[in-house]
Amino acid sequence: MEHDSTGKRGDLRARLDRMFFPGSVAVVGASDVPGKWGNLILTSIIGWRYQGKVFPVNPGKESILGLKAYPSVLDIPGDVDLAVFAIPARLIPDGLRDCIRKGISAAVVISSGFKEAGAEGKALEEEIVEIARQGGMTFIGPNTMGIASAHHFFEAIPTPTEIHPGGLAIVSQSGNLGLQILKWTAHKDIGLNIYAGTGNEALLTAGDLLQYLGQRDDVTSVAMYLEGLADGREFLETARTITRKKPVIVLKAGRSKTGSISAQSHTGSLAGSYAAYCAMFKQAGIIQVRTPTELLNVAAAMTHLPVPRSNRLGIMTMGGGWGIVAADECEDSGLVLPELTGEIISRLDGLLPDYWNRRNPVDVVGEGDADMYLQIIEALARWEEVDAVIPLGIVGRSGYLEDFIACQENIDGKLYSRELKLAALKGQIQSENRILSGIGRLQKETGKPIVAVSLTDTGLSLIDTGHGKVISLSSPEQAVTIIAHMARYGRYLRDKWD
Amino acid sequence: MEHDSTGKRGDLRARLDRMFFPGSVAVVGASDVPGKWGNLILTSIIGWRYQGKVFPVNPGKESILGLKAYPSVLDIPGDVDLAVFAIPARLIPDGLRDCIRKGISAAVVISSGFKEAGAEGKALEEEIVEIARQGGMTFIGPNTMGIASAHHFFEAIPTPTEIHPGGLAIVSQSGNLGLQILKWTAHKDIGLNIYAGTGNEALLTAGDLLQYLGQRDDVTSVAMYLEGLADGREFLETARTITRKKPVIVLKAGRSKTGSISAQSHTGSLAGSYAAYCAMFKQAGIIQVRTPTELLNVAAAMTHLPVPRSNRLGIMTMGGGWGIVAADECEDSGLVLPELTGEIISRLDGLLPDYWNRRNPVDVVGEGDADMYLQIIEALARWEEVDAVIPLGIVGRSGYLEDFIACQENIDGKLYSRELKLAALKGQIQSENRILSGIGRLQKETGKPIVAVSLTDTGLSLIDTGHGKVISLSSPEQAVTIIAHMARYGRYLRDKWD
Repeated sequence: MEHDSTGKRGDLRARLDRMFFPGSVAVVGASDVPGKWGNLILTSIIGWRYQGKVFPVNPGKESILGLKAYPSVLDIPGDVDLAVFAIPARLIPDGLRDCIRKGISAAVVISSGFKEAGAEGKALEEEIVEIARQGGMTFIGPNTMGIASAHHFFEAIPTPTEIHPGGLAIVSQSGNLGLQILKWTAHKDIGLNIYAGTGNEALLTAGDLLQYLGQRDDVTSVAMYLEGLADGREFLETARTITRKKPVIVLKAGRSKTGSISAQSHTGSLAGSYAAYCAMFKQAGIIQVRTPTELLNVAAAMTHLPVPRSNRLGIMTMGGGWGIVAADECEDSGLVLPELTGEIISRLDGLLPDYWNRRNPVDVVGEGDADMYLQIIEALARWEEVDAVIPLGIVGRSGYLEDFIACQENIDGKLYSRELKLAALKGQIQSENRILSGIGRLQKETGKPIVAVSLTDTGLSLIDTGHGKVISLSSPEQAVTIIAHMARYGRYLRDKWD
Repeated sequence: MEHDSTGKRGDLRARLDRMFFPGSVAVVGASDVPGKWGNLILTSIIGWRYQGKVFPVNPGKESILGLKAYPSVLDIPGDVDLAVFAIPARLIPDGLRDCIRKGISAAVVISSGFKEAGAEGKALEEEIVEIARQGGMTFIGPNTMGIASAHHFFEAIPTPTEIHPGGLAIVSQSGNLGLQILKWTAHKDIGLNIYAGTGNEALLTAGDLLQYLGQRDDVTSVAMYLEGLADGREFLETARTITRKKPVIVLKAGRSKTGSISAQSHTGSLAGSYAAYCAMFKQAGIIQVRTPTELLNVAAAMTHLPVPRSNRLGIMTMGGGWGIVAADECEDSGLVLPELTGEIISRLDGLLPDYWNRRNPVDVVGEGDADMYLQIIEALARWEEVDAVIPLGIVGRSGYLEDFIACQENIDGKLYSRELKLAALKGQIQSENRILSGIGRLQKETGKPIVAVSLTDTGLSLIDTGHGKVISLSSPEQAVTIIAHMARYGRYLRDKWD
């Protein structure tokens, strides 16, 4: 491949900046028929707060969604930074030629019906690559579900979502899976920077995207769903540089025989040996996860929490069971639970009842208040023998209290006033907020991640504490998995990758 | 142990029926001080729809929560089936003696401060066991967070929850973890039969509870959190009989060194070798899971879905990525994805576009409607080469549409009327309901579980379809894990446990 002739090197940064942060965009195949791709994409672009110019292109229409429409990109007055294509595959060659004539140097080809659809599509894909190359143009796709850049309020995807701008970039070789992760990111308020569905990667590859994201300082972490890489060696070189600056988390699909065959037929990529990929990722300092949920959880933590120096964990538990489940998971995932030594024991002796277990996990047994919990968390976080802390079961109790009050309401005579109950609930919520805020402060002061495990059934939650974000999960093993991945990265940064 | 003298054998069923379905209950240590255990437990018992008589016992009070209070159980007029104790440990011996005098044959000892609290507590625990034995009484605990029976609307726990009665029984050696699972069960509407926190198991053990649950025909599945077993051999014998009739799912904690030590110190139980437990569980036909989330998910599926005959899975996917992630997980968890053969290929040829992948997972590519999806699911479910089906990505799209409409609303000119948007949303919801209802019907007709994977981030959902319940998960690997566990059980029932 002659990268330079397609602008993939050299001015990659400038070209992709124009793609993800366009000042003006043409939507080729824009439509006012609800449900059509050209309608979904145009709605997505103009429905949020995108400030650039938008030009619907459709030869049969005067205006679409209230915007003046043009028969061709050639009819658009002024410059256009990006063209998004939602027209049948066979019309793409001419569409690209028009772009080149118009001086549009970047495109997103949403249209499917290329390599993934058989021999004819494959030939068509080769043709559009050639056209782009000859014309000095670049494009992402075909067969992609689009791109987004949250800080630019630019979403060219079929499933627009109100996204909070942030530091996480997502690159996905699967549109459906990528957009699902994007939705979760939005709903969990993780904070997105860039989303890129790479589709068939006829021209721009996941590796190119990674290189670009490495160059953008506002991208603080990268999450990738990969099926296969066209150029593993190049990807490795790129990743190696970037992982020193920011975490790259990869879900590599196709580790099974069936999965690997499916991956090949899906985007037509060569899946390669899974073991070889694992070795490569390890060498490149990439954090490798196994499931979409893990990808989201680890990406959220990596985006908002400090990286632990190593793999030593302190656990505080509100009840034995959770502590044991967490300890089991630690051993499986390579975390170590240091035994409590004289100094930390004496500190905790001053806080806990006589018969406390004097072990890690520290069981806080029976009752206690927010201040006591926080003091224990602080003692653990400041203990030099641990690199991260998990407090189990102290957050999320307000949900329990809500249920309790619902039960109490049914008792004849209404013995406690509504005010009293609401005051109790308010007190509980305030106390939890005090703990969360304390965790945020301690995280900042000690540079150690503190991942809370709540009692609710909501999975990952991200809480803004005023001292940075705090993460809570709904089950101990999820918190342990996150810390384990972060610890591996922390050791890698210190050249101790294991 | 002389089980008979404590009524653990022989009349176990009658005694435990009185414990879980009491006609009358005394709450010893009842309190009107919010937050006290005696207040939490009494509120929990009387706040829902429990129809039995409730007698608060507290020598200092005339009435508590609107009920007449008694100085001692001896002062209660008429028979009492069950006493629940929430008084300091040192007062339990006299409390039990009073029960025996009164003819109360069953108790729940919530109070802590026994074996788990050191040597003195251990002696006290031995004392109360001796008292119960001598008096022909039985009790659960001490150091338990209580029990519940949903069909009897009886909850004697500190965290009352509105529970839908059903077939699942939960037995937990950890109060906190057990009540968390109970809450999830309630919130996810899985349907509960009995909850039992076994605490220190001074007298009644998890094995006794399992035996009891085996005898109750209305209990259709059992989920257990175990740390250690006092009598492994006996438990094995009990389980072996029961698993032939109903599934028993166990999360055995303490598989790590630290976890195993913590388990010992937690409820004072001997944890034993984890490998030995695994071998025993396998021999007994017990389904063993690794995490609390898995325990809940598998229990929900086992309670509501048919058991597959074996481990052959058909997958339909809306997009390649999900299918590959699911296929990867299949290989790891022992499921097989049979290759499509001539007959099923021709059936699907009639439904899908020319270039469909002709593989399992079946990629439905691009667009389609509810009827088409249902026809594909039906083709897979009726195919004799598979025992279970997972449709990926066809449920949960209404959430996407809601987001889309929110975006659409922002467009100047409001081109589409609110009515049109609501009609679209309604149509989408109806179409999903039609699919879910079809899945329910097919599940019933074919006897094969069909576990949907949705696009939302809510984890497990249970949907009532009018043809029985359908389960949906939010990530492919979760669905695969559930089916894999069910398949192992199905093979066990056919003497093919692997």
